Amino acid sequence: MIKVVEAEAIIQAQARNYGVEVVPLEQALGRVLAVELTADRDLPPFNRVAMDGIAIKYDAFESGTRSFRIQATQAAGDKPAEVFAADACVEIMTGAALPSMLDTVVRYEDLEIKDGVATVLTDAVKQGQNLHQQGKDKKVGEVVAPANKLIDAALIGVAASVGATALRVKTLPKVVVISTGDELVEVQEAPLPYQIRRSNSYTIQAALQQYGIQAAQLHIPDDKESIKHQLAGCLQAYDVLLLSGGISMGKYDFVPQVLEELQVSKLFHKVQQRPGKPFWFGKHANGVLVFALPGNPVSTFMCFHRNFVPWLKASIGLPVTQAFAALSTDFAFEPDLQYFLQVSISINTNGQLVATPLVGNGSGDFANLVEADAFLELPAEKRNFKQGEVYRIWPFKPVLY
Amino acid sequence: MIKVVEAEAIIQAQARNYGVEVVPLEQALGRVLAVELTADRDLPPFNRVAMDGIAIKYDAFESGTRSFRIQATQAAGDKPAEVFAADACVEIMTGAALPSMLDTVVRYEDLEIKDGVATVLTDAVKQGQNLHQQGKDKKVGEVVAPANKLIDAALIGVAASVGATALRVKTLPKVVVISTGDELVEVQEAPLPYQIRRSNSYTIQAALQQYGIQAAQLHIPDDKESIKHQLAGCLQAYDVLLLSGGISMGKYDFVPQVLEELQVSKLFHKVQQRPGKPFWFGKHANGVLVFALPGNPVSTFMCFHRNFVPWLKASIGLPVTQAFAALSTDFAFEPDLQYFLQVSISINTNGQLVATPLVGNGSGDFANLVEADAFLELPAEKRNFKQGEVYRIWPFKPVLY
Repeated sequence: MIKVVEAEAIIQAQARNYGVEVVPLEQALGRVLAVELTADRDLPPFNRVAMDGIAIKYDAFESGTRSFRIQATQAAGDKPAEVFAADACVEIMTGAALPSMLDTVVRYEDLEIKDGVATVLTDAVKQGQNLHQQGKDKKVGEVVAPANKLIDAALIGVAASVGATALRVKTLPKVVVISTGDELVEVQEAPLPYQIRRSNSYTIQAALQQYGIQAAQLHIPDDKESIKHQLAGCLQAYDVLLLSGGISMGKYDFVPQVLEELQVSKLFHKVQQRPGKPFWFGKHANGVLVFALPGNPVSTFMCFHRNFVPWLKASIGLPVTQAFAALSTDFAFEPDLQYFLQVSISINTNGQLVATPLVGNGSGDFANLVEADAFLELPAEKRNFKQGEVYRIWPFKPVLY
Repeated sequence: MIKVVEAEAIIQAQARNYGVEVVPLEQALGRVLAVELTADRDLPPFNRVAMDGIAIKYDAFESGTRSFRIQATQAAGDKPAEVFAADACVEIMTGAALPSMLDTVVRYEDLEIKDGVATVLTDAVKQGQNLHQQGKDKKVGEVVAPANKLIDAALIGVAASVGATALRVKTLPKVVVISTGDELVEVQEAPLPYQIRRSNSYTIQAALQQYGIQAAQLHIPDDKESIKHQLAGCLQAYDVLLLSGGISMGKYDFVPQVLEELQVSKLFHKVQQRPGKPFWFGKHANGVLVFALPGNPVSTFMCFHRNFVPWLKASIGLPVTQAFAALSTDFAFEPDLQYFLQVSISINTNGQLVATPLVGNGSGDFANLVEADAFLELPAEKRNFKQGEVYRIWPFKPVLY
């Protein structure tokens, strides 16, 4: 049985680049940008007027001129006016391109306008004021978004502004979520007293959807030949097999044996963690990876977030965020295993993340996960964990939103 | 001009319930559960075997029996075996339903099995061990997920387990995102030197998508009659109009005037905040709300997150999370406005959120938003903000993931 950090190192060593594909801008939200985006023009592309008012030559103002003849009115989107006389101005709107002969904008609030003449009512005018200078944010060719960035709403807007109607994004691995277990019936079925409904595949499929992956689903009965036949097909059709169940010591836990018969090399079986101890991980000669997670719902969920997600992030170029939270109360855990405690997360008025244990009824109590926000990772070496001590968290909900 | 908290109170008073609709479980991720979900059976629905091994009568073990005849083998999903003799046992697998006459499970690791007889090798056997008792997590009829809960992967799994093939969720408001401004051209167009591409609507549309809202998009030229005609149509077709631009003091800023002509009552215009000061908010007699955001991209983005999202959350039943972060460095801001500073967020090893200012080039520098994670809300009453002081943040990225 290996330690959690050892399992992590073995898994992360299998991170793999699945390539690049092009998607329309409208479908890029939540994907990962594969190449940097650069400015196709300066940003702003012209000296952009930032207040409604008049544009003047500062020299004229400095020489004492206070009344300016309005020679033209220029809206945003209008071709810039041409102004030559020192005492002339352009009545100009926010977003307009400053005429090339002018350099300063005085806002309406500081003007009196009468009979086509604008009189400046203040002496506090600075050269270049109320302008957003061409190229101040970015110069043409400069990076506006780096590669390996999660595409969020802000990035979508920046991409639109540089004319990127389609984006090069990281290709996501093709994933199939496979459940085993003859006790499982479909969600719409009425289970017999000794049966339960299939839920793990739904959970994992939804969790993958949050990373943009539309996974396939497959249920295989606990029959060795069926398992072998179906897994053989999956090893040809997908990049990653995410199994749940069938990997413990039971007589019908055929998964590890079948995987080895199918030339999937075991990279490890069993990790010093609770939940999730029976976790099996392997790799086919063709590069396909198999994450065989324990079938217990909380174990599946924990292994997905602690053992699979970091691999996914590494494979698509995202960093694995290190997040920490302080225990709200003492907690004890005896066994020599890394314990992943279900916690709810709050933020105190010091800005500190606080983890409150939701102990539940052991690793089988997955109804608990509805109220929990994260797993708190408690080191195997310790037994007693004190209020205020800080440990790493593995959030599975957007607790800050 | 009103304060930020006053604007918030006026907006939140307009929170509205848009009703309930039913969606298939597969499409429910990211929606808000409208009614509580209850267990249709006990969870677990039977005394569930939690380890592979044998099921015995504890009384027999206590009376000294150590060798048990294997009378049957029972896999998960099998009908429970019937066992009457005290020295008989059932070889049984994780997930199986415990036979009614038996009460304790001994795992394979503590057994020797030979010639159809299992011998227990340990004296440390407790009555009821290695079982997940029927109803221990939830009793039939108990709430497994409360109403007004964001539907995440864990909730999807719990819903599947109680047989909910469809979920009653909060109906989302119908939203149209409207841009104005004659300087704006489409993303695929090559702008003239004094034009820029339309980006705000893309940003807002993507931000709404993160809340499950598929918003319509509309661009209206800066022409009073067009604006009036189009807005009149929108006021009949949508629940919420999210405009950007056209609300300042410019000669072509027709939006506030046209909205009042269309019987949209102004609830406020201008908020003591930067960016986002010219924000206009109103309500039509038919209940339609109009959020008219300033056209500057950072202003639009800030108002969306600070002024619109809390309204949306209140309307669909989600709490508005209060999150705080500590400033990483001193910062000064002179004007008498609530300042929303663009910050990146990190989590230190104490679990504290730390906000690092990305000052950028004023409210127009929206390329900055690609690197920022949140707005730090700095009170208008203060001028100097010191390193280590803690203020409220408005995150717009999932910083903990």
